[in-house]
Amino acid sequence: YARKSFFIAIGGVAVPFTVGASLTVLFGFAESFMSIQALFIGSILTATSIGITARILKDLGKLDGAEGITILAAAVFDDVFGILVLAIVISLNETQTISSSNILIIAVQAVGIWLAITALSFLLSSPLSRFISGFNTEGALVAIPLGLALICAALAEHFGLAMIIGAYSFGLGMSNSKIKHEIEHQLHNIYNLLVPVFFVVMGMMVDLSAISTPVLVFGIVLSLTATLDKLIGSGIPAFFSGFNRIGSLRIGVGMIPRGEIALIIAGIGLSKGIIGTDLFGVSVIMTMSTTIIASIILPRLFKNNQDGIKK
Amino acid sequence: YARKSFFIAIGGVAVPFTVGASLTVLFGFAESFMSIQALFIGSILTATSIGITARILKDLGKLDGAEGITILAAAVFDDVFGILVLAIVISLNETQTISSSNILIIAVQAVGIWLAITALSFLLSSPLSRFISGFNTEGALVAIPLGLALICAALAEHFGLAMIIGAYSFGLGMSNSKIKHEIEHQLHNIYNLLVPVFFVVMGMMVDLSAISTPVLVFGIVLSLTATLDKLIGSGIPAFFSGFNRIGSLRIGVGMIPRGEIALIIAGIGLSKGIIGTDLFGVSVIMTMSTTIIASIILPRLFKNNQDGIKK
Repeated sequence: YARKSFFIAIGGVAVPFTVGASLTVLFGFAESFMSIQALFIGSILTATSIGITARILKDLGKLDGAEGITILAAAVFDDVFGILVLAIVISLNETQTISSSNILIIAVQAVGIWLAITALSFLLSSPLSRFISGFNTEGALVAIPLGLALICAALAEHFGLAMIIGAYSFGLGMSNSKIKHEIEHQLHNIYNLLVPVFFVVMGMMVDLSAISTPVLVFGIVLSLTATLDKLIGSGIPAFFSGFNRIGSLRIGVGMIPRGEIALIIAGIGLSKGIIGTDLFGVSVIMTMSTTIIASIILPRLFKNNQDGIKK
Repeated sequence: YARKSFFIAIGGVAVPFTVGASLTVLFGFAESFMSIQALFIGSILTATSIGITARILKDLGKLDGAEGITILAAAVFDDVFGILVLAIVISLNETQTISSSNILIIAVQAVGIWLAITALSFLLSSPLSRFISGFNTEGALVAIPLGLALICAALAEHFGLAMIIGAYSFGLGMSNSKIKHEIEHQLHNIYNLLVPVFFVVMGMMVDLSAISTPVLVFGIVLSLTATLDKLIGSGIPAFFSGFNRIGSLRIGVGMIPRGEIALIIAGIGLSKGIIGTDLFGVSVIMTMSTTIIASIILPRLFKNNQDGIKK
């Protein structure tokens, strides 16, 4: 499934990025496609939040079907591409001047830093697992990975990227370690503690007075296109990778929810001053809409129990 | 064991409180026994941190022996008395003027608020357990009790007590609920996350330049008397409740560590301006000393496997 998922993820990043950035210019929220606001909204739209889709598929018992496995794998690629796009856009913001000549240098730098953190975590994951397993106390499973993730986050921030990039890279590097499931299990309650706090903070960052009519209109249009562009961007590659019409639809819809990833990116943009409260509001509208739309449509697509693979 | 533990706890609160407050005056850190600094240092000394003792006894396999059960029960009473003393002292600080006539009124008020929060939590614990169990998601076990504990903490703070009093009272009220162990289990990793942060913050609050020679001398003297006053205050009641000499010694030593409780109280005092960095430093020295002393002596007292109860 890796090759299929790769192309599904490529489409699911490229189409939303292009459409999102173009619409930002079209609605007058950015001067040109290459301005930082347009690129940033584009990168928010590349996000895929697998949480909602995984939950729905799990409840339906379809998580280990062809579509389920493909969506999960595509979401991993999608996350990596999204992180890379974010790294490049944030680096561009640091340098202020965006020209096609320096984009390449910055892209290479950003990807290089990301690769370095990921490779280092990957190489260290095996000795680290042994080190952590050597402790007699359960707390080591929480404290050490969390501490290292925070250090990687600080490292990424130090090199002009965003904290989420460093933390994600550390997680990616640790993903093949032996104690992966134990760490995941131990961190789950911390997740339960921090996730509600995250959503409350994100909600409080919304400035309702900034949601003027043009902002609202752009928010609605972006929500609709955000639904369509993942459907097209991921659905069409799926159709050409052996899935039939219903299978491609399921995959396309499964990739629609932007969830917490888009909110995190939007929050970074707001705090770094890349976007204002208007575009942050637009991002929140888009995130909520896509998440709700997908969770309404997806279960219906699995109702008829039809096979999703071409005969 | 409840009656025995009650008297052991009474002694373990009364003796350290009196000795601690007196020494604070004697060393010139407070004007009189009734001044707020003296009363506050007294209430810091009443604390018993059962964590260290429980851990040592567990490792020795003695947690369910007569001494183990008695220490654990006494520590619960001790916590309640300590919380009450703290509530009264903090209320006294709010009113500024301390006279024997208003101490009674304030004590009744403080105990009343504490009783109200505890009783309310106690009454609500059973319907609350059913409510929480009704959720299909594990996160409810974390989010709801934690949220209510924070509300109780805010309530206590609002009524002029300290946050720890409200949070502790909520926990006390929930202690007989059916889902107690599940909540404890779920919160354990959050504990693993926050406890290191707590100790780092406490460590950073120490102002090394405030540790002058008189402060250091007072710290050492208080550490030694803190060791002796729990030994005497809890050991003698133990001796008169059916324990022999070695049994009483074990109980007395088991009550010595002040641990995180003393640090929390000292931190409250520092942030409310009741004590300065000098007395905070003294409290940290005392906390570390008592914790180390107890963890060295306690295992030795169990070495000979002698029975601790009078024949």
